[in-house]
Amino acid sequence: MNFEIISVGTELLLGQIVNTNAQVISRMLSELGYNVYYTTVVGDNPDRLQSALELAAGRADGIITTGGLGPTGDDLTKETIAHYCGKKCIMHEESKRRIEERFASQGQYMPKSNLKQAEMPEGCIVLQNDHGTAPGAIIETEKNIFIMLPGPPSEMRPMLLEQVRPYLEKRADCIIYSESLRIFGVGESAAEEKLKTIIDRQTNPTIAPYAKTGEMELRLTAKASDTQQAKKMLQPLETEVRNILGDFIYAKGENASLEKTVVDLLRTSGKTAATAESCTGGLVAKKITDIPGASACFPCGMITYSNEQKQALLGVTAETLAAHGAVSSQTALEMCRGVREKTGADIGIGITGIAGPDGGTDEKPVGLVYIGICAEGVHRAFRFYLAGDRNMIRERASLYALDIIRRYLLNKLDVDYIW
Amino acid sequence: MNFEIISVGTELLLGQIVNTNAQVISRMLSELGYNVYYTTVVGDNPDRLQSALELAAGRADGIITTGGLGPTGDDLTKETIAHYCGKKCIMHEESKRRIEERFASQGQYMPKSNLKQAEMPEGCIVLQNDHGTAPGAIIETEKNIFIMLPGPPSEMRPMLLEQVRPYLEKRADCIIYSESLRIFGVGESAAEEKLKTIIDRQTNPTIAPYAKTGEMELRLTAKASDTQQAKKMLQPLETEVRNILGDFIYAKGENASLEKTVVDLLRTSGKTAATAESCTGGLVAKKITDIPGASACFPCGMITYSNEQKQALLGVTAETLAAHGAVSSQTALEMCRGVREKTGADIGIGITGIAGPDGGTDEKPVGLVYIGICAEGVHRAFRFYLAGDRNMIRERASLYALDIIRRYLLNKLDVDYIW
Repeated sequence: MNFEIISVGTELLLGQIVNTNAQVISRMLSELGYNVYYTTVVGDNPDRLQSALELAAGRADGIITTGGLGPTGDDLTKETIAHYCGKKCIMHEESKRRIEERFASQGQYMPKSNLKQAEMPEGCIVLQNDHGTAPGAIIETEKNIFIMLPGPPSEMRPMLLEQVRPYLEKRADCIIYSESLRIFGVGESAAEEKLKTIIDRQTNPTIAPYAKTGEMELRLTAKASDTQQAKKMLQPLETEVRNILGDFIYAKGENASLEKTVVDLLRTSGKTAATAESCTGGLVAKKITDIPGASACFPCGMITYSNEQKQALLGVTAETLAAHGAVSSQTALEMCRGVREKTGADIGIGITGIAGPDGGTDEKPVGLVYIGICAEGVHRAFRFYLAGDRNMIRERASLYALDIIRRYLLNKLDVDYIW
Repeated sequence: MNFEIISVGTELLLGQIVNTNAQVISRMLSELGYNVYYTTVVGDNPDRLQSALELAAGRADGIITTGGLGPTGDDLTKETIAHYCGKKCIMHEESKRRIEERFASQGQYMPKSNLKQAEMPEGCIVLQNDHGTAPGAIIETEKNIFIMLPGPPSEMRPMLLEQVRPYLEKRADCIIYSESLRIFGVGESAAEEKLKTIIDRQTNPTIAPYAKTGEMELRLTAKASDTQQAKKMLQPLETEVRNILGDFIYAKGENASLEKTVVDLLRTSGKTAATAESCTGGLVAKKITDIPGASACFPCGMITYSNEQKQALLGVTAETLAAHGAVSSQTALEMCRGVREKTGADIGIGITGIAGPDGGTDEKPVGLVYIGICAEGVHRAFRFYLAGDRNMIRERASLYALDIIRRYLLNKLDVDYIW
């Protein structure tokens, strides 16, 4: 069974928004093992929409549309498809009630035109919209399935994943199920080399590395009759990968992040961390405090951009700065000790480096970063040469700082990062 | 003249990447006054590419493709279009030389297959690629123009803007030129109301407000025969808008940002600022230090998440915390005074609030934020009730903090923010 996606909306053709809907739908279809050969964008124009529709219906089994379900005269997707299928649109009482309730609960007056959204093609499956007023619809004909979804991603996405996906899963011969391992400290090609024997022999399940900003994702994917069987197939593969990559794997799951892992580890161990940042300028603290509940384990951070403040706030000595410079392992060591002593936190982290674009020298180039950690039984500094522009260097340095906290808490600080 | 965009790439149909190219091209075409009626995505499959191409060439004057110009056997865009136009691909010596040089300069061995990229349709205009190996091409036939661009956005974008845009500008009847005013502190609907008389009478030039995260952009657009004339047309409109919105306008230009404006103002005034952050957790410092050269005006920031550290580092008194709580104007006032005194900065900023999702009460709900400023002649706190989730509240609070620094430096602190 193959699919086509038709995104309806003049704002897409004007380039005012990017078509993320098509990506989300394509990815889901691909996960379910369906082929997509074409996707099309067409404006809010009935003739052109009709011609796109006829073309798609002629060459694909399933058609998924986004957009054109709203209350205005421009919104014609439902009417055009119903007409193509020889069906009338009739008032769907349940949808009408939901739309009226939605307006009432927000204390808003409902323009009458809104009820147009509750007129659904006869015999269709109505897809309830929990995040907006326009319901979606599925029409099944002898040759095709038409699935109509609203345009705003905040409405389209939940409808797709919660209602359309289960509907299509039932029709799929098999499902494709993925799990994601999150990896920090080893680069894409190094990981591929380490995993070469697994990658070379793979058929089902498969593994694929994806580079992300400063880190890596490893997707383990199985094709199976159902999710449970797929999970069972992935288990031994995951164990094998974990044996090879060990503690470079910091978490599992698409929504994992290094900062979330660190906050979780700090909270479960009952420890606190404090940061002294120079080149990252608050980014490490920002990442930690992005996580709700960080207040329990992050009493404070300092951003000491100037040498004076490194001395005044952290007790870095004038001698160290004069002899080794602000960007040195000695300064990083004094920064992390200073912030730990000053705040009484269990773990002190100090970060100093050259983020660029200016300020680099032959001896100390842009991208040179020192990260120090001071905690019970540990007082050491790591040196990194980081690639990229100012943003990328700051991002990478902050990820290393987080990883160093993670490794300290796991008692795995002895590491050779491999890129 | 109307255009169609065909994006070639199986990775798009699998949903591995989002089609930003189509957006960038659509926007440019719309700015030049060209219509786009359809855009299509097709995989790396010669038959389907050919059929998409025939369809597009039949209904549009111009076709812009992205992708499929690489060295592998899958990359067939150039060959398919050349074949459609009845043209052969022949070696283009200048492109060959450039590709060889590119490999040599990176000390890399060049696989022979790479030379395929230098074989260009006879009689085409070659578009030089300064950011990769695959050149682009323009073929003009009696009925159509075919413009072939590489797929990677980092290569496509400069080729489009630097080479294709001037080519298409020459053919356009008129150009559409926009300028962007950046506005903080007044909401989209409030701005629309203030600008109503201008908006109501607009034909050419036009103004349109766009909501951005926490701020607003106002686009002034003129249709004219050339850029110079368009600029002249926008001048009186800009003056009129500035008379109405005054110092809510913080900068001009698409790449402007509140943090850049603040760093520029601090540097030209020779003043320094220091931050004491609680709920924003380092985000204000992070934004300031995003800007190269911030070190000259930002000696230090402190993130005092815990009450203990607010006392120890900033000298907030136990009495204040007990009587008014950590989230109060009194605490904000002591935080900004504390960080200023401690660091000797000219301007101290203190931010305390409830970012959520937990921690809100009836009296002090999630979104309540106090921002204090302490500087020569000023010691006051602002109160805000900010909407949104944790991220949005932190983002908005940090923008207000930056705006308060900006307004202090402009001597415009007396403001009623209007949302």
